[in-house]
Amino acid sequence: MASHVVLIDCPDQKGLVHKITGVFYRAGHNVTANAEFVDETTQHFFMRTEITGPMDAERIRAELQAELPAPLAVRITEQRAKSVVVLASREHHCLADLLVRNAYGELNAVVRAVVSNHDALADLARRFDVPFHFISHEGMLREEHERRVLAAVEQYQPEFLVLAKYMRLLTGDFVSRFAQRIVNIHHSFLPAFVGASPYRQAFQRGVKIIGATAHFVTAELDAGPIIAQGVVPVDHTHSATDMAEAGRDVEKLVLAQALRLVLEDRVFVSGNRTIIFD
Amino acid sequence: MASHVVLIDCPDQKGLVHKITGVFYRAGHNVTANAEFVDETTQHFFMRTEITGPMDAERIRAELQAELPAPLAVRITEQRAKSVVVLASREHHCLADLLVRNAYGELNAVVRAVVSNHDALADLARRFDVPFHFISHEGMLREEHERRVLAAVEQYQPEFLVLAKYMRLLTGDFVSRFAQRIVNIHHSFLPAFVGASPYRQAFQRGVKIIGATAHFVTAELDAGPIIAQGVVPVDHTHSATDMAEAGRDVEKLVLAQALRLVLEDRVFVSGNRTIIFD
Amino acid sequence: MASHVVLIDCPDQKGLVHKITGVFYRAGHNVTANAEFVDETTQHFFMRTEITGPMDAERIRAELQAELPAPLAVRITEQRAKSVVVLASREHHCLADLLVRNAYGELNAVVRAVVSNHDALADLARRFDVPFHFISHEGMLREEHERRVLAAVEQYQPEFLVLAKYMRLLTGDFVSRFAQRIVNIHHSFLPAFVGASPYRQAFQRGVKIIGATAHFVTAELDAGPIIAQGVVPVDHTHSATDMAEAGRDVEKLVLAQALRLVLEDRVFVSGNRTIIFD
Amino acid sequence: MASHVVLIDCPDQKGLVHKITGVFYRAGHNVTANAEFVDETTQHFFMRTEITGPMDAERIRAELQAELPAPLAVRITEQRAKSVVVLASREHHCLADLLVRNAYGELNAVVRAVVSNHDALADLARRFDVPFHFISHEGMLREEHERRVLAAVEQYQPEFLVLAKYMRLLTGDFVSRFAQRIVNIHHSFLPAFVGASPYRQAFQRGVKIIGATAHFVTAELDAGPIIAQGVVPVDHTHSATDMAEAGRDVEKLVLAQALRLVLEDRVFVSGNRTIIFD
Repeated sequence: MASHVVLIDCPDQKGLVHKITGVFYRAGHNVTANAEFVDETTQHFFMRTEITGPMDAERIRAELQAELPAPLAVRITEQRAKSVVVLASREHHCLADLLVRNAYGELNAVVRAVVSNHDALADLARRFDVPFHFISHEGMLREEHERRVLAAVEQYQPEFLVLAKYMRLLTGDFVSRFAQRIVNIHHSFLPAFVGASPYRQAFQRGVKIIGATAHFVTAELDAGPIIAQGVVPVDHTHSATDMAEAGRDVEKLVLAQALRLVLEDRVFVSGNRTIIFD
Repeated sequence: MASHVVLIDCPDQKGLVHKITGVFYRAGHNVTANAEFVDETTQHFFMRTEITGPMDAERIRAELQAELPAPLAVRITEQRAKSVVVLASREHHCLADLLVRNAYGELNAVVRAVVSNHDALADLARRFDVPFHFISHEGMLREEHERRVLAAVEQYQPEFLVLAKYMRLLTGDFVSRFAQRIVNIHHSFLPAFVGASPYRQAFQRGVKIIGATAHFVTAELDAGPIIAQGVVPVDHTHSATDMAEAGRDVEKLVLAQALRLVLEDRVFVSGNRTIIFD
Repeated sequence: MASHVVLIDCPDQKGLVHKITGVFYRAGHNVTANAEFVDETTQHFFMRTEITGPMDAERIRAELQAELPAPLAVRITEQRAKSVVVLASREHHCLADLLVRNAYGELNAVVRAVVSNHDALADLARRFDVPFHFISHEGMLREEHERRVLAAVEQYQPEFLVLAKYMRLLTGDFVSRFAQRIVNIHHSFLPAFVGASPYRQAFQRGVKIIGATAHFVTAELDAGPIIAQGVVPVDHTHSATDMAEAGRDVEKLVLAQALRLVLEDRVFVSGNRTIIFD
Repeated sequence: MASHVVLIDCPDQKGLVHKITGVFYRAGHNVTANAEFVDETTQHFFMRTEITGPMDAERIRAELQAELPAPLAVRITEQRAKSVVVLASREHHCLADLLVRNAYGELNAVVRAVVSNHDALADLARRFDVPFHFISHEGMLREEHERRVLAAVEQYQPEFLVLAKYMRLLTGDFVSRFAQRIVNIHHSFLPAFVGASPYRQAFQRGVKIIGATAHFVTAELDAGPIIAQGVVPVDHTHSATDMAEAGRDVEKLVLAQALRLVLEDRVFVSGNRTIIFD
């Protein structure tokens, strides 16, 4: 099990891997896994390294900065359970799957709380001894509701937010506070069926496969960088409601898969695309 | 092996299966397979029956019309190889796959000819002893080119046209001559990435799964009823070109699968959706 | 939603569908779905019919027996939640998934109790308010342990037993009490890797895909009729432990899928094969 | 496009990546892709490097040997089309798919000849202008037939043999001449259904998914290191013959996928497992 993950990205040039592994080697670090990628369209270099044992992060960072070309980004994360708050609405399947994984330590995270604009899932959170905040949006301006949600979230100082079928739009202001730290599950194979009622849209278009997409949330609806996608076959016997039922299992699995990748520091965002070292 | 397929659709009412099977039973027909479906949103009934042995199609049709509610559609097709013309451009993979299946009698069809706006695939057609018509679109108005393509096609009187990566738009006039008889393969998971360069669009959107869609061609681009879809996973290491390469195999398989369904009389079109008895 | 499901199987002959639908039609029943299949190797006929509204099951059964050839089997089940007891050991993922579905009424069943040879999952059952019976096998003969398990099970008079990663072999005597009523999830793509430690076997064989198999339990280990199977890709980076982790999600989904089919009366057993109308 | 691929494997130790990339860096080589893997069970290190531009292979080999621990294996291959002979019997689909890919330069190989114990596919090879050797096994001892096949093969000095549904067993003697250089496609999801008639075995077992496995041939039947596997769903409506038909497409795709990996020097064999850098 890695104790630290080092994520490096910078302009590509000859010998980068040799230089970077040299920094780790001279520091006596035990590298247990390396992965590199050069994006040919941007000539940008990405590398993820797992290190086991103690590490002087500041020294490593300084040496990398001395050796590597600018603009350089170095992230060094100590591997421990991240702090997460989940936002949900009325559908239980994604939240329940997360709470089970959380209860058995399978998430590389600790779910601190669930915040919802409905009270339907209060009982589910209670079963798993996770604090539940019901903040109704009824009779309230969007900004006022979001302000209250934010207040509830911030008391837990989470590193990541998970939208587990949270059916409210977030403002750009909210999103910018958690840039590349909000993971949403959208119940379609994006970019098909952006927005509301994707299963109804899928039914009307007569598709033979439906899907789910986990992505980082950005200011533009359903347009953020995609982390993971999955699909399930359907046919003419599926009504829009049947498609929604058929889609639940792929939604919960794709969300869990994306969270694993994010919480294990396996994801770079490059423009609107993700680079994932799995 | 069935000798006839009977396709019936009409408004739903109680006892339809009993009435229809009664018509076949009293005629002494050997029904080897039946499948029914009621579209709950339209309360419309669809049934496909396979019959083995000789059949008096006109008598059966008359009896069904006497028993079943209007508006009623009855199609009775004798099972024999359908006549097909393939339109292609420069990419070989779908055409080659069809020509191999055609050469070994796997298509329930006979490919009469290949018509192309490029000469790149002439050699491929020649290898399989299928007539090839090269009709360049260079320096020609769309309507004039299409008129020549139509003339080449019509000398074979095909029952179905297959667009095997044919990269030209067809006019509504052309399409309407072959309503529900033109099958196209589109190299994306429709309705994502309609139109030109879907793999480039997919790359730019950063999707993790790409797909292919076989559909009937209608006047609106890439919007006709979907017959079959397939997918293949991709990741950040795939350039747009790599995605195109990765997509080739799923394109050829999805097209072959859709053609099998159409050529075995397994597909109803209902509005913009298909009902498929496989 | 169907109120009754009628399952019929008998030797094939001409006109069976007409005769059977005639019985329902004359009784004024509202047939909402029909599906038939003839096994060509055995010339045996299978049919499943969904009926909505009140039904005189005894009258229908008598009329079917008068019209259809022997040997005939007719099962008429009123659609209501079946009674289920789950057996588990130490792994939580399948049990947790079932308990979530049970809590939200998604199973067409009620989980009456969990019986386990370990106490590891007591807490999980308690979270969902389902009785948990811990019956250790330590220092006990197999027969004695099974006798106690049986006693615990029988107080709930369950219609079906589900083995959700229950890691004890059942005797032929136990199995015969619940013929075609015990559903097991085996963590391999049967018939590959029968018996103990299938993921270790899979690792050693170097397979590139692992799977899970839900099947009815028979006296012979892992050899009962298969209901559902699923797969997930793996590669050389997966240790046997990683394969076990990767397999968990497909295990829980395949088990849930098989249970839905069984609990909605969609499964016939024919010899060692299943015929499934989905 | 890489000009050379370097495959290195040796016992694991700290700093290997740094040392190896140092050798390439000091030689001024342009490394376009690197991938490494440490097998934790054997503490063995594997690395694949792509280099673009001219290369002094002997100097690189010598420097690597000076720096890396023994036992060390270094393979340096110049990237050019490999020489391949295909063995086939009566089924056309895998051979046809290979010949199409070969004709369009998609294989990273040149198919020099087809050798078959039947003449059924002579016409197919002729269509693609590939020499075809018909060597009947009728009335001949296995060893005598194999001796003649070997003579036909050896006149082409192929680097790899492909068994494209070749239905004859090869002796250990034949296999040892082409160790890790014979790729076979087996029409089952190995290790299920080893040996003859796997689709019949699959039908009798009542599986819900069938598969295909591409593997290196070893002396033990269907037991060699697996390179690629694929699956396709089936159900009770599939007879053994239907399963064989359904399996054809996955067979040809899995074989093509495995060949791409082998012919692009992406496969290490470690014991009976493969390590694949894709």
